[in-house]
Amino acid sequence: MKLATLKRGGRDGTLVVVSRDLTRCRAVPAIARTLQAALDDWESCEPQLRQAFEALDSGAIEGEPFDPAACHSPLPRAYQWADGSAYINHVELVRKARGAELPESFYTDPLMYQGGSDGFLGPRDDIVADETWGIDFEAEVAVVTGDLPLGAGPDVAAGAIRLVMLVNDVSLRNLIPGELAKGFGFFQSKPASAFSPVAVTPDELGEAWHGGKLHLPLEVTLNGQPFGKPNAGVDMTFSFPQLVAHITRTREAGAGTIVGSGTVSNKQGGLYGSSIANGGVGYCCLAEVRMYETIEQGKPVTPFMRPGDRVRIEMHDVAGRSIFGSIEQTVRGLTP
Amino acid sequence: MKLATLKRGGRDGTLVVVSRDLTRCRAVPAIARTLQAALDDWESCEPQLRQAFEALDSGAIEGEPFDPAACHSPLPRAYQWADGSAYINHVELVRKARGAELPESFYTDPLMYQGGSDGFLGPRDDIVADETWGIDFEAEVAVVTGDLPLGAGPDVAAGAIRLVMLVNDVSLRNLIPGELAKGFGFFQSKPASAFSPVAVTPDELGEAWHGGKLHLPLEVTLNGQPFGKPNAGVDMTFSFPQLVAHITRTREAGAGTIVGSGTVSNKQGGLYGSSIANGGVGYCCLAEVRMYETIEQGKPVTPFMRPGDRVRIEMHDVAGRSIFGSIEQTVRGLTP
Repeated sequence: MKLATLKRGGRDGTLVVVSRDLTRCRAVPAIARTLQAALDDWESCEPQLRQAFEALDSGAIEGEPFDPAACHSPLPRAYQWADGSAYINHVELVRKARGAELPESFYTDPLMYQGGSDGFLGPRDDIVADETWGIDFEAEVAVVTGDLPLGAGPDVAAGAIRLVMLVNDVSLRNLIPGELAKGFGFFQSKPASAFSPVAVTPDELGEAWHGGKLHLPLEVTLNGQPFGKPNAGVDMTFSFPQLVAHITRTREAGAGTIVGSGTVSNKQGGLYGSSIANGGVGYCCLAEVRMYETIEQGKPVTPFMRPGDRVRIEMHDVAGRSIFGSIEQTVRGLTP
Repeated sequence: MKLATLKRGGRDGTLVVVSRDLTRCRAVPAIARTLQAALDDWESCEPQLRQAFEALDSGAIEGEPFDPAACHSPLPRAYQWADGSAYINHVELVRKARGAELPESFYTDPLMYQGGSDGFLGPRDDIVADETWGIDFEAEVAVVTGDLPLGAGPDVAAGAIRLVMLVNDVSLRNLIPGELAKGFGFFQSKPASAFSPVAVTPDELGEAWHGGKLHLPLEVTLNGQPFGKPNAGVDMTFSFPQLVAHITRTREAGAGTIVGSGTVSNKQGGLYGSSIANGGVGYCCLAEVRMYETIEQGKPVTPFMRPGDRVRIEMHDVAGRSIFGSIEQTVRGLTP
């Protein structure tokens, strides 16, 4: 089942079921007006939504044309956005670039930060920021959970994963060092994230979804050029159920909790050969290539995003069909 | 105007207006079923809510008895909970206890962390946690905002403060050092917070609300004994408008954003004379007295909370009337 949220209809938009080929959709107000409402009452809504989805997908119901540009993020705002950092290669490179060792505990205890969730960007919305902040994208996979009790372990968490989607966790790199030095984690350095137009139930991913990971390349294009295609199922140290269980160690988690994987990153040898042009799988953020440059050449060369720069994030199934639709965002400078 | 949320009626409860003396209340489904719904459409709802409140308070409408034990937090869940640390004395003591200097920037750049907001505790709900986690309370003041644009400064932020309430920002002290050492801020060490039964509009506070601060003692009782009564308007380095403006430097803030003051703390000379028994204003968390003990005696003596321990947080106006009702929570151990 594929779901999306059109921008029309208020702050939380309008929930629609979307055909597998992403060409048609249909609002389902008799079942749930918003995705959060469906998640709040999933046991009752899910079978009805599936029925509406199958009727649309089979052609029994025509629906309306699906336009990703009319979409908000599947949850335009959420009660929780917790972003892990499950691809340790990314963290290793960050540390190596500043000459620090990776603590052993990082392989057993997930890194996770609490993100702002009061308002996300739509998948085609501009990223509005000051260029001097060091604007970067982070292409990730994310899941949406149902209710989880305090102490839920990975097995319980696995059963509570309702939806899967993509995310651009926009990051302001030049604000991060100062902010992390204060000791309380990210805040101003993590502005609003954007999610893929479509969220899908895990069964929609077929064999690509196993072990609590999504085993397909995550494709990133920067200004029309291929920039990254690492496999999201490779080098993911913590599975989604493990990330979700990290939240529930000391508290419950409410329906509609979004949990991110962190920047997808596959281990590669070094700067040479890691870019797609040189036969590598490339990168899911600018910071990663800048870290390779720092490690090997003493300083970063690739600039962060500038006004007018465009990033596109998408994932195709083995048959070449777009699963979630694409995130496509352009940077727009702050007008003083 | 005073507002509260009864637990009945679903995940977001039932919005009620509450009489000034906290004895009676009245649901207002024709205006807004939930507090979030009212905040989402404040310009339209606020005058209607005031009318209903005045009719109740004047006795023109009887309403029903108000029972704080039937209350959830005013927002049972929220889209954003951002907690500042505006009382620098608290931060100074933390640093001093571990022999570190306070960076000069801490006096100009607020400390703030993104808290979990997918589910709060009701004001009379138990705190369920493992005793070995180092269970502590943090008594604070918090505000709820309307929508704010990117780049909103303190003046704009001041005009968007809709409600004021109290909060117990439950903290798991023994989990904090390891978590902060990882660099991404609090997560497991900050389980669900609880808010006062009643939230009030700033005008309800009269002269006690000025300069974006609440100038009244915040009263904390531990197991029935007075533990703290520092004035929330004293030694607050950053006002609420300044804290809110910290959020909006790089992003918008959505209606219903909750912003906390951080643990209220007044500068006192040292351990002797700072407790209420010795003529001081006491403390709003156990960590603070433990820091005085560490600084003066080499190690903390006062234990953290244990199963059965009770904390009460309340604030009275100059005439001795409870403004927000009381947070009253008992610790309950985890049952394996």
